[in-house]
Amino acid sequence: MSVVRRSASTGDAGRRTTSDPIPPTIEWRRGRIRLIDQRALPARLTFVECTTVGQVCEAIRSMVVRGAPALGATGAYGVALAAAGARSDTAVRAAADRIVATRPTAVNLRWGVDRALEAYVRGGAEAALEEADRIALADVEANVAIGRYGAELLSDGARVMTHCNAGALACVGYGTALGVIRAAAEAGKRPRVWVGETRPVLQGARLTAWELDRLGIDATVVADSMAASLMRSGEVDVVVVGADRIAANGDVANKIGTYGLAVLAAHHGVPFVVAAPTSTVDLSTPDGAHIEVEERDGDEVRRVVGVRIVPTRVAVLNRAFDVTPAGLVGAIVTECGVARSPYVESLERLVGDAVT
Amino acid sequence: MSVVRRSASTGDAGRRTTSDPIPPTIEWRRGRIRLIDQRALPARLTFVECTTVGQVCEAIRSMVVRGAPALGATGAYGVALAAAGARSDTAVRAAADRIVATRPTAVNLRWGVDRALEAYVRGGAEAALEEADRIALADVEANVAIGRYGAELLSDGARVMTHCNAGALACVGYGTALGVIRAAAEAGKRPRVWVGETRPVLQGARLTAWELDRLGIDATVVADSMAASLMRSGEVDVVVVGADRIAANGDVANKIGTYGLAVLAAHHGVPFVVAAPTSTVDLSTPDGAHIEVEERDGDEVRRVVGVRIVPTRVAVLNRAFDVTPAGLVGAIVTECGVARSPYVESLERLVGDAVT
Repeated sequence: MSVVRRSASTGDAGRRTTSDPIPPTIEWRRGRIRLIDQRALPARLTFVECTTVGQVCEAIRSMVVRGAPALGATGAYGVALAAAGARSDTAVRAAADRIVATRPTAVNLRWGVDRALEAYVRGGAEAALEEADRIALADVEANVAIGRYGAELLSDGARVMTHCNAGALACVGYGTALGVIRAAAEAGKRPRVWVGETRPVLQGARLTAWELDRLGIDATVVADSMAASLMRSGEVDVVVVGADRIAANGDVANKIGTYGLAVLAAHHGVPFVVAAPTSTVDLSTPDGAHIEVEERDGDEVRRVVGVRIVPTRVAVLNRAFDVTPAGLVGAIVTECGVARSPYVESLERLVGDAVT
Repeated sequence: MSVVRRSASTGDAGRRTTSDPIPPTIEWRRGRIRLIDQRALPARLTFVECTTVGQVCEAIRSMVVRGAPALGATGAYGVALAAAGARSDTAVRAAADRIVATRPTAVNLRWGVDRALEAYVRGGAEAALEEADRIALADVEANVAIGRYGAELLSDGARVMTHCNAGALACVGYGTALGVIRAAAEAGKRPRVWVGETRPVLQGARLTAWELDRLGIDATVVADSMAASLMRSGEVDVVVVGADRIAANGDVANKIGTYGLAVLAAHHGVPFVVAAPTSTVDLSTPDGAHIEVEERDGDEVRRVVGVRIVPTRVAVLNRAFDVTPAGLVGAIVTECGVARSPYVESLERLVGDAVT
């Protein structure tokens, strides 16, 4: 069940997905990194081009690009960009450190940066770019495999609740949680999706809804706080979300609100499924207590689409992620198969498959 | 423990609260109803004046005024307004029906309208206005009493989570859930408040935060989906919310998201307290299954501060309320005392006290 990782020539990762209704999130184009500007969606599909590591860091910090797998590929391309113009190894390493420091919770970012850096050390700038391309290609392949495994867990006409955006835009393409939904749709299962809008940055309302619309999949956006009501009225068959980091014991760090959904799902007997590539599993993190949870700028809560909604002097807290304990997670779908409790064993086995 | 309901001369309800840092939500002024325009808060404190029943209905529908107790008083003044200019009983009754139809879930609206209408039938336009004044005065008195009972349930330095706005702005003055917090602050208990922003209309971020700031009470606004994380990290000692309708068995209809908070509170062993006047208790509604839950315009979800966040063709669902089953409610604080399970008995007893 291990993933085939074909070596890809430069540029393949982008061209491969041109028939997709959603353009690649990240693409290497003639020495630049082209990113979909996710801040402008759904109003406008526009792109940001990065020619410096500083621009890559700013794009990550300001959420031009976000989502664990997408950050992995962006980080790798960022190292390739640094390597292409570098005068010394020290400069490339410093660039790698700067990129990793932008988002502390997403393990894929460090993973992507480290892989490109190792390739650079072995074979120079060209090797770093080849490694970034390999990561980008493997991302889409992994997501298609995740989709295939995950779709088997969905019944015909399943009403799926998801949170945030674990779609093509959170990856190089296809998506993890949305990959599962997409694969179910491609298999003729006609899933219907409840999309939690996902305050504060509204990735659900803006990005997931945009993707599902492009894919022709039935979607309804709700306020995050409506999830409990929908579960109580029996209108949710399964919750499927992505992950930013999965600890060795199966604890899952993901967008703030995920843990609440998991508690609600357990209370209502609704299965709770996590979909993520094995690169999101961090076996060196024993459990959720060891995951650093990023706090982001309070202005994300204080303002919506630029307009202040909270009175000037009042404090806000903007915890970006929460940790769902493994006991609330029914299944973790990876590109190597479906892990179930006890996760200490199942995850180690699947991650072992991935790297062989 | 019954409430003393002094008869109030016209205009008293407004003047009584002039020393309050928050002006009266609803005030009868020289034949007009003056309402704080809650849509403009926290940016601007402005007022809307209604001289016709049509304007009153529009103010309710568009959420110039909202909150169960505030709707009760507004409904009563609306009847007084209709009575003042009416040519026939039929016209006053028709006006009453129009007002009641604006918001189906809030039982107080019907209650306030019915009381003013009965007074009108007995004693004409002047009696209707006196009854509306009596309701407005009793509202603040009831809230102060709720605050006193509720504050006893809060420990020193309690970290209180609340949702939506059950404050002075949801009433004529003082507030129900925020009345409890305010009374605790007045008793020197220094409560600290987590304010859920309360999408879609953001009453928490906009109104509750504004009130707490004016009152000098420590407040921190969070995205609604952060509640579970805060409870898990042990940072919430009690949840206190208001109610739009309480059924005879103790099931509580309140702003969407309340039920989810109740499930999360139960999961984390956090007490869940409802604060509401006995006028919110509807003994003729046996349980939550008999409460009509209003669905509001999807544009409240689709747009934030006027800007579209959901792609054009994607559906939204905007259920305005949910119902929390009595089994998750630790206490219901009324102006006549604290009701606890079994609510069928305790609520009937307290409501009996209120009307005697």
